Amino acid sequence: MTRPGGRSARVRDAVHDAVVELLAAGEIDAAIPKIAERAGVNPTSIYRRWGSREALLLDAAVTRLRSTSPIPDTGSLRGDLLGWAEGVEHAMRDRHGQILLRALVATMGPAEQPVEYLRARGEDLQAALDRAEGRGEPVPTVDEVLDFVLAPLYLRVLFRRPIGPGTAAGLVDRLFTALRAGPAPRAGRGG
Amino acid sequence: MTRPGGRSARVRDAVHDAVVELLAAGEIDAAIPKIAERAGVNPTSIYRRWGSREALLLDAAVTRLRSTSPIPDTGSLRGDLLGWAEGVEHAMRDRHGQILLRALVATMGPAEQPVEYLRARGEDLQAALDRAEGRGEPVPTVDEVLDFVLAPLYLRVLFRRPIGPGTAAGLVDRLFTALRAGPAPRAGRGG
Repeated sequence: MTRPGGRSARVRDAVHDAVVELLAAGEIDAAIPKIAERAGVNPTSIYRRWGSREALLLDAAVTRLRSTSPIPDTGSLRGDLLGWAEGVEHAMRDRHGQILLRALVATMGPAEQPVEYLRARGEDLQAALDRAEGRGEPVPTVDEVLDFVLAPLYLRVLFRRPIGPGTAAGLVDRLFTALRAGPAPRAGRGG
Repeated sequence: MTRPGGRSARVRDAVHDAVVELLAAGEIDAAIPKIAERAGVNPTSIYRRWGSREALLLDAAVTRLRSTSPIPDTGSLRGDLLGWAEGVEHAMRDRHGQILLRALVATMGPAEQPVEYLRARGEDLQAALDRAEGRGEPVPTVDEVLDFVLAPLYLRVLFRRPIGPGTAAGLVDRLFTALRAGPAPRAGRGG
């Protein structure tokens, strides 16, 4: 498979592939030399680019999870969010998607740094909300979208509850029902 | 501190304490002999009772998280759920609570077994919903309570977003707004 972006992007993809394959094979603790061997790159390249195994795992999980569920531009906010949520649902039914989400959560470790993952997804969502606002549609906040749609999907995966058919669509419906029900249902702002 | 329940319960508490202390000290990978040493019990007792380190971690996390946020019987469903959700919020602001939740998620590992934790919490919740139904109140399903209230709180912790004041109360309000808004907002059943 040819990938765009030149050598640097190819190395990144190969290393991400190696991480996903090792995680899927149950090698949760694979160290950088082993990842490098599988990716066919020099361990030094990995240390130089990512600095640590944890940073690499986070980057791989964030990049792959984000790419599996882009937010489409369908002309309506409901269409955009439905397309995105069904992409998340689809990714979370896939074993690799589940493994990546679990790795993402587990890897964040005991350090207190904020997490870039939800920030990146938040920016994607904000762009869709801005488009909807420009069309004059009522819009929720990013936090509301995360609470109503993403949190229930992720909780099902993390606690190994099955994601039934139509789950994503039902969650998006709830969000719009809440939007219509009056003053935006605000939970204490999370940041 | 005197604990009820005899020797077996005392051993269980001591071992759970040891697990929490080791996790809090960053010793995520502490093996059973180390846990036994800290708890002042024989490693054999731990192997016999829990079978594996993973089973012990799960039991400790489930027991402790569940005990930090019991569901009160206040005479109204809103009061019951508010008391419970504020207990969860409080536990999730605490570093030990965050560590236990993360350990719970991380420990579930790649095996495909269902998770008892949400089942146990689900039974606690069902009892509160049954009481409310007996009083003639409109009631959500357990899945709706998990989606609206628990999932957003847990997602904030797992992705290291701050839990602002009033978050739990705001989430409970959303659930009741949705209940009033008409036909129960059902997302695909998760089991």
